[in-house]
Amino acid sequence: MKTERCDLLVVGGGPGGYTAAMRAAAKGLRVTLVEKGPMGGTCLNRGCLPTKALLEDTLTIERVRRARFLKGDLKINRERILERKAALVAESVAGVTQTALEKGVTLLQGKASFTGPDRMALERPGDEPLEVQARHILLATGSRPEYGPGFAIDGERVLDTDAALALASIPRSVAVVGTGNRGVEFAAIYANLGVRVTLIERAKRILPREHRWVSGRYRQVLGQRRMQVLTRTEAVAAEPTQGGGVRLTLESPKHEQDRLEVDQVLLTGSRRPSFAGLNLEAAGLVLQDGLLEHGPALETGQKGIYVAGDAAGAPYLAHKAIGQAMAAVDGILGKEASAEALVVPNCIYGDPEVGSVGLKDYEAKKAGYNVRLGEFHLVRNGRAGTMGKDEGVVLTVSDADTGRVLGMHILGPSATELISLGALAVRNGLTVGDLKQTVLPHMTLSEAVFESAAATDGEAVHQ
Amino acid sequence: MKTERCDLLVVGGGPGGYTAAMRAAAKGLRVTLVEKGPMGGTCLNRGCLPTKALLEDTLTIERVRRARFLKGDLKINRERILERKAALVAESVAGVTQTALEKGVTLLQGKASFTGPDRMALERPGDEPLEVQARHILLATGSRPEYGPGFAIDGERVLDTDAALALASIPRSVAVVGTGNRGVEFAAIYANLGVRVTLIERAKRILPREHRWVSGRYRQVLGQRRMQVLTRTEAVAAEPTQGGGVRLTLESPKHEQDRLEVDQVLLTGSRRPSFAGLNLEAAGLVLQDGLLEHGPALETGQKGIYVAGDAAGAPYLAHKAIGQAMAAVDGILGKEASAEALVVPNCIYGDPEVGSVGLKDYEAKKAGYNVRLGEFHLVRNGRAGTMGKDEGVVLTVSDADTGRVLGMHILGPSATELISLGALAVRNGLTVGDLKQTVLPHMTLSEAVFESAAATDGEAVHQ
Repeated sequence: MKTERCDLLVVGGGPGGYTAAMRAAAKGLRVTLVEKGPMGGTCLNRGCLPTKALLEDTLTIERVRRARFLKGDLKINRERILERKAALVAESVAGVTQTALEKGVTLLQGKASFTGPDRMALERPGDEPLEVQARHILLATGSRPEYGPGFAIDGERVLDTDAALALASIPRSVAVVGTGNRGVEFAAIYANLGVRVTLIERAKRILPREHRWVSGRYRQVLGQRRMQVLTRTEAVAAEPTQGGGVRLTLESPKHEQDRLEVDQVLLTGSRRPSFAGLNLEAAGLVLQDGLLEHGPALETGQKGIYVAGDAAGAPYLAHKAIGQAMAAVDGILGKEASAEALVVPNCIYGDPEVGSVGLKDYEAKKAGYNVRLGEFHLVRNGRAGTMGKDEGVVLTVSDADTGRVLGMHILGPSATELISLGALAVRNGLTVGDLKQTVLPHMTLSEAVFESAAATDGEAVHQ
Repeated sequence: MKTERCDLLVVGGGPGGYTAAMRAAAKGLRVTLVEKGPMGGTCLNRGCLPTKALLEDTLTIERVRRARFLKGDLKINRERILERKAALVAESVAGVTQTALEKGVTLLQGKASFTGPDRMALERPGDEPLEVQARHILLATGSRPEYGPGFAIDGERVLDTDAALALASIPRSVAVVGTGNRGVEFAAIYANLGVRVTLIERAKRILPREHRWVSGRYRQVLGQRRMQVLTRTEAVAAEPTQGGGVRLTLESPKHEQDRLEVDQVLLTGSRRPSFAGLNLEAAGLVLQDGLLEHGPALETGQKGIYVAGDAAGAPYLAHKAIGQAMAAVDGILGKEASAEALVVPNCIYGDPEVGSVGLKDYEAKKAGYNVRLGEFHLVRNGRAGTMGKDEGVVLTVSDADTGRVLGMHILGPSATELISLGALAVRNGLTVGDLKQTVLPHMTLSEAVFESAAATDGEAVHQ
């Protein structure tokens, strides 16, 4: 088997992998990236990008439905929606591929498995196998979803998110199992298309990672949009019915067992790092409860081998992968790097949106801070009013002793964009005073962020 | 005439006036605010708010027109658009009024004129005149538009922005004279409604206050939207035609005189501070070229008399008024206040949007900085792609010696929101490094801001 040498071998072409490869190449390292499928990973091919394409188009439909000044009938051409999505994915994959090549990354297609702690064999479709010996290896192999044993995904009635993205048909009713980021986003897409949606959540509230108030308010808004929400409820099995739909078996403390009949069920599953076929043993790597332990620069127990992105465990977010990839490359370059300093926001797309970063007030209290909370409701924000979407809130959590912003939690239109203000503030140690002295353009949604900071001192202008 | 006493008399109930009144009242001052019309000033009644309502609704129309997956005919109900606008204005005016009352501000309706440097007489509709004696007086009397002598606004064919907002009819063609913030916003509203738009600008480029690249690119995008743009062209007269339209006389260096026939012409005019009827002489105040000179805390030459907002001169922006109002109240309360420290962003609503703050690269060079420029194009931003609006750019201007962000200039979707990141950075002395170390949610438009910072060092991930 032919052997090639490089400074950094990256396994996986998702956001973590391609960011690391491009950054390292730009810094002068010889970099090889191996990917078994198309470049872009889950994010570009089966996650963030195609869901946003569907969300954006279906929000147009929802917007027309909500506009009282438009009368008439519109027909939805499902194929055109899918064409646009496919074109966006193809363009983005091509864009990332081209950028990587321009930055001097060697791209190889194939499956990699360790043959030693500093080398991997690549099985390549229609090509000779190849061994790559590398001074550093980064595993950015992503994650895969797991579902309960009572479910057989058939892609027609029992769907995973891949099947939902294919949108082979528009059902009349759907049950979405799981109300994390993906569940809530797909629920919005279906509801925008006019589908009757039931959300099913095992935990006691939807969006269980988010601020309690935010989840509570989100549930109210979904109710106003006529979605049914079942919490403390576990979907344990799904079986096809003779009528062409599917019957879900639900368990909850109240009603021990219950049934729900719908046209389709979407399982969002829970994600786990994916190391299949890597032959970790040959590199001396051992999984602990399915995870690879790693230090602050993402280096594993085996010197020279790094892990980043979904492969490094929760949270399973593309921007966390990008942040970790940069920290790992800094570590490889001998620069001080600490992925522990990463402040990772969370974003829920859908309708409405949620963005959050840093600590919640009750977490900050537990951590010993003398906590202050600034709260501003979008019903007093002019821009939200003009958009007809004023049900949101901005919460700013700060430390009374230093004024520092510790966290921000936003529900409302463009919350996924507005949270960047919170991320910038939390990461760089800005204070409530810093936010208050900044003049924000009128009339914008961003004003609500600053009003929420001002509300900490009872100084919100419009409240 | 009965005399009442207060700590602060605010003249004018727009954003500058109501912010100052509420803030001073919250700090324990006895505050009276006098307004001759409805609360909210130009912003809520005739400016920011109603234009956003029209823009938002007409963007829905534009979005449907652009959506290739929607087929069918929609009818626009003009009355419903106007109803929603009127309801939003009424709600906002009521909201601001209620908030002011809750904060303990005494609201009076009437026209105020100085009877001495510390007192004003109020002429009140259906009520006795009243004299208010105040330790401090803040003039937040706004601005009014001026048009050339060749124009008689009739509200039907020759419109000012008030008449355009009334949208008594939807013309087939319109000429918009002036391509500043208002001209470009109304041009978008008309174009969204399917009206053929010609933009006329005296200067050599549209959006003359914005970065040269941004104006150039904006003009290209308007061209793609089939608007005609005439620069270095002055509209000198408008006269009705027999066909029910209007004939504009244009002057330009190339074609000495030219004619343009359209259904309607909208004049955006130029704004000047408004002090009509205030009897400034009685307070010992003298206008210099139409302006009241003032110090850093907005105090005029007459001790105890302050000026803020449009009345204090350009830029004529609601958020500048809010910022100045807060600075003026700080000054009144004896706190250190400097309105000169205000960093005032500029926002252009429309399609696309523009947001800018701080210095342009060529201005910073002139000011002696060792300038670096980071440039990122939205064609490489995934979220912009999913929105089908990827023609924008983000420019980050920084000081090579300190890394500090000196300015930011954005063209693209939600630029008016994204610029808040720039405002926060510029106002609080953040560096390019601070932006680079912040993890931004994927996939968002905000990422483009951080990519543009990273591009300063050639480190943009997606470029």
